[in-house]
Amino acid sequence: MKTLIEKIKNNQNLSQEAEDYLYSISKEKTFSKGDILIHQGQQVNKTYFVTEGCLRSYCIDKNGKEHTLQFAIKNWWISDFIAIYNNELATLTVACLKESKVIEFNAKKLDTMLNLFPEFEIFQRHQLERHVVNLHKRILNQLQLTASERYNLFLEQYPEIEQFTRNYHMASYLGITQESLSRIRVEKSKK
Amino acid sequence: MKTLIEKIKNNQNLSQEAEDYLYSISKEKTFSKGDILIHQGQQVNKTYFVTEGCLRSYCIDKNGKEHTLQFAIKNWWISDFIAIYNNELATLTVACLKESKVIEFNAKKLDTMLNLFPEFEIFQRHQLERHVVNLHKRILNQLQLTASERYNLFLEQYPEIEQFTRNYHMASYLGITQESLSRIRVEKSKK
Repeated sequence: MKTLIEKIKNNQNLSQEAEDYLYSISKEKTFSKGDILIHQGQQVNKTYFVTEGCLRSYCIDKNGKEHTLQFAIKNWWISDFIAIYNNELATLTVACLKESKVIEFNAKKLDTMLNLFPEFEIFQRHQLERHVVNLHKRILNQLQLTASERYNLFLEQYPEIEQFTRNYHMASYLGITQESLSRIRVEKSKK
Repeated sequence: MKTLIEKIKNNQNLSQEAEDYLYSISKEKTFSKGDILIHQGQQVNKTYFVTEGCLRSYCIDKNGKEHTLQFAIKNWWISDFIAIYNNELATLTVACLKESKVIEFNAKKLDTMLNLFPEFEIFQRHQLERHVVNLHKRILNQLQLTASERYNLFLEQYPEIEQFTRNYHMASYLGITQESLSRIRVEKSKK
């Protein structure tokens, strides 16, 4: 929790009252590899800030195939934000790729916090703006780069993630088949 | 400008002072088909709220190929948000697909507005949250749907946009070749 408090304090003043509130709506938890934090189809009322480990959010299509929206490591947030912001049931599943420590927040109470302590709006806005930038870049990369270029860019940007992923996690994030990913890896190892 | 003021008033109180400020940092403009509002590689200090017409944001890759990030019609915002939020030069071009009326805002002054009238933070946060939801959905659709399914979904969600687009606009939004899009259209017309 200290990491998150520091992260916030780097960006803005944090009153003792606000800090106490943050503690009161959060819970530090440890999950094991394979644990499911959010189930597709269920109600979502939790948001997670990762302090250690690696998690993945994905949806499962009608044929049972998984499609990875996001990986999350230390200092990242993960949840089903479509469900939270739209007040819908989860279209995503969030699972642990390795033992992970997270701070679990009640999403509604986190939202209430913005009413109680409006100074948090700026922090939250900057987080959302950064998130929008990353999503725009991901869409543009998906449109303009080859699968091999996208894979190399991913390794360059997030070198610590690949070790926790299985072949189909990465392939389903890049939007390619596992066979294509294997070919790309073989090509890369030859260079 | 009235449309936008009403849109804001639907969501929150708007003091006369804040309304006056909004007017002071904005300018209603009409652009012709083909006009470029933002040029890739240049500084970006404008954000546009569309009141009529249709605009498109896209990047041009090293081979001169265009990739469409977004279309914008009435009541949508468009700009290069990567450039604005990250304070970078434009990676996108924003152009008019038909004669369009927009409200042009100075992006920095719009940001200042959030400091001057903090009640706008909530409005802005909800806009950003909705934007994040749309981007998450777009990425998931790109991963799990076929090109034909994505095309049909686009027509279903935004039936008014296609009429303003050329073949390569739509193909470069869906991430497919123009030939594939033509095939999909032929198949669709046979049904």
